[in-house]
Amino acid sequence: MLAEIITIGDEILIGQIVDTNSAYISKELNKVGVKVYQITSVQDDRKHILQAFEDAKKHADLVIITGGLGPTKDDVTKQTFCDFFGDTLVEDPAVIDNVKELFKKYQLNKPLPANFRQAMVPSKATILMNQYGTAPGMWMDMDEVVFVSLPGVPYEMKHLLQEEVLPRVIKRFNRPHIYHKTLITYGLGESAIAERIADWENELPEDIKLAYLPSLGKVRLRLSATGKDKKALEKSVDSQMEILEEMLSDIAVGFEGETSIAELIGKILTEKGMTYSVAESCTGGRIASEITQYAGASSAFMGGIIPYDTGLKTKILGVPKNIIEQYNVVSIPVAEEMAKRCCKLFESDYSIATTGIAGPTKGDGEDEVGTVCIAIGTPNGVVSEKFSFGNDRYRVIEKAANKALEMLLKEISKN
Amino acid sequence: MLAEIITIGDEILIGQIVDTNSAYISKELNKVGVKVYQITSVQDDRKHILQAFEDAKKHADLVIITGGLGPTKDDVTKQTFCDFFGDTLVEDPAVIDNVKELFKKYQLNKPLPANFRQAMVPSKATILMNQYGTAPGMWMDMDEVVFVSLPGVPYEMKHLLQEEVLPRVIKRFNRPHIYHKTLITYGLGESAIAERIADWENELPEDIKLAYLPSLGKVRLRLSATGKDKKALEKSVDSQMEILEEMLSDIAVGFEGETSIAELIGKILTEKGMTYSVAESCTGGRIASEITQYAGASSAFMGGIIPYDTGLKTKILGVPKNIIEQYNVVSIPVAEEMAKRCCKLFESDYSIATTGIAGPTKGDGEDEVGTVCIAIGTPNGVVSEKFSFGNDRYRVIEKAANKALEMLLKEISKN
Repeated sequence: MLAEIITIGDEILIGQIVDTNSAYISKELNKVGVKVYQITSVQDDRKHILQAFEDAKKHADLVIITGGLGPTKDDVTKQTFCDFFGDTLVEDPAVIDNVKELFKKYQLNKPLPANFRQAMVPSKATILMNQYGTAPGMWMDMDEVVFVSLPGVPYEMKHLLQEEVLPRVIKRFNRPHIYHKTLITYGLGESAIAERIADWENELPEDIKLAYLPSLGKVRLRLSATGKDKKALEKSVDSQMEILEEMLSDIAVGFEGETSIAELIGKILTEKGMTYSVAESCTGGRIASEITQYAGASSAFMGGIIPYDTGLKTKILGVPKNIIEQYNVVSIPVAEEMAKRCCKLFESDYSIATTGIAGPTKGDGEDEVGTVCIAIGTPNGVVSEKFSFGNDRYRVIEKAANKALEMLLKEISKN
Repeated sequence: MLAEIITIGDEILIGQIVDTNSAYISKELNKVGVKVYQITSVQDDRKHILQAFEDAKKHADLVIITGGLGPTKDDVTKQTFCDFFGDTLVEDPAVIDNVKELFKKYQLNKPLPANFRQAMVPSKATILMNQYGTAPGMWMDMDEVVFVSLPGVPYEMKHLLQEEVLPRVIKRFNRPHIYHKTLITYGLGESAIAERIADWENELPEDIKLAYLPSLGKVRLRLSATGKDKKALEKSVDSQMEILEEMLSDIAVGFEGETSIAELIGKILTEKGMTYSVAESCTGGRIASEITQYAGASSAFMGGIIPYDTGLKTKILGVPKNIIEQYNVVSIPVAEEMAKRCCKLFESDYSIATTGIAGPTKGDGEDEVGTVCIAIGTPNGVVSEKFSFGNDRYRVIEKAANKALEMLLKEISKN
């Protein structure tokens, strides 16, 4: 079965926000066997919205709409949604109660007339109560196609999707299984990989699709299949993936999953009862921020130091001044000292240290923008490597952070 | 004039990646007076792509396409693009040279046949040479509508857009001016703001559009206008914005611009010849990461400490143990001590300190998930505040980081 996603809002079309809702919804729909045919972003404009609804109806069994449900008059979605089905707006007492409760819960002043306007809903729609905001979701099942309208605020949308929409989708539609598995590789370009695996790719069963996803030095290879028999599907993709992994064993670093590399490191170290810390110069907190984004980080992560100013590498971390003077602040010896001393300062088993030139201007030394030295402190000593990550500041930070986490993962996976 | 953006790739429709290209392109087009009518994401499928091209042609003067130009066989865009115009693919020697040069520059092995396939381009297209990748962009000007195809890798797309596409768009099309100005407010809901400014909103000139953009405790109010006379346009929007800002002076914190709050802080402090540092517990490096994302951060930012483990707040920062025991680690006194000692440790004029419970599980103390204490160290003492940011870990971290930067900005703007 096919779905379409329509996101409504001028803020998307003028580039004021990035539409993250669509990716989230697509991923969640895929998990329950719903394929997304198209994603369309349209303006807060009645005619345009109606056109998008008409177009979507041609292909899709399920249309999910986000945005345009605010209490203020720049939002036209609800009335348009109602009109599309020839329905009328009626007041829903349950939504009024919900608005009152929300205002009480968050200790706000009394709800305003505009807030109560949220309770005007299409008479034929099933109302999806929003526990995190005043705009309810709406489920309209007419003429064989289901239209669902959700608020655009991401966390409100996510809760409604999980708690109200997906259970109804599972009940309402007959769905196949969709299965994706993605291998992550580093160090070889898309074409070179394609050449190496050409024979295997040509022999792939028709129902398994291969996709190449190149980005920042890595290429991800995704195998996808759709079918009724979940077990057979997974078995067939998994066995092809095994062959692929074997062919690319020198460049494969693992599979993409729900678990990010930072989360995986946290889990492995927690299981081992070991700890880690970070000393970030050029990555400026990016690695720590990645690590602490995941629940449970505190069980293995001791903390970090960002000695951005060169003098602080000596003052707080204790890197000997003469090493910095002799080798330059962006150097393997300095990175290694940072990693060792980071373990000591934070009393951790492992550490990550970065020092480099994120750019756009060169530092004091002779190295080019993009030069980054990374060292990993381990209970058995330090490993380190020097990299050249190009001249785009944002990319240098991102690549260095990814590479550092990858190096740590490799070390903790050794024993 | 109107543009449409079409992004091609199954990875978007299965939610494997978030489409950030569209927001970037929309923003850049807006700057040169091009309005984006619609953004459409479609599959790597010939029929679907052709349909999207047909639909886009109905509305748009300019269609920008990203993605699907890789050297491997899962990408069908180039052939489809060529067929849509009834054109044929021919080999372009300049692209071959470019591929060879790129391989030389990045010290890669010899280009493969697949790489040279990138040099097969539609005979009638103007080729936009890609300095950062092997897939060239293509500009096709036929039947009054211009179609531009760009690679999907964001940094390749960005360079091509800036260096090759926008200059041609400016030359080819007659464009009006588009002007947006956005006021950022904290502390009042969308409905309450709407009620307060209702009279003014009703009297707004027809050609100025107001939009409400609520997110995570803040509401942004955007005024937009389009017209031929750039100066008159800006004057009219600016004067309305002045009135709006006056009406909302108690909740307005500034305007949204190219400069983020972290960047603004860096600029102000650099001008003053002053410095700052951070001590982040619950925000785990997020604030430092925001700060160091911008070029030139190092001129005012000394560095940071992430004493994630409670003991480290005493060991490295020197927060007295008895204060932690007496008041609990998530408390105003601890946050204030952290801020003071952060200034001392990093020898900085200002500091930010955060301590809180990001969740999902409660810490040792009695406070609920989402409780965060933030303190700002200044040359004249410390200011602090306790917040309750809800129970979603990611949101708690984001809200705390935003609020902390906002508090610092307020302090440094005082003198």
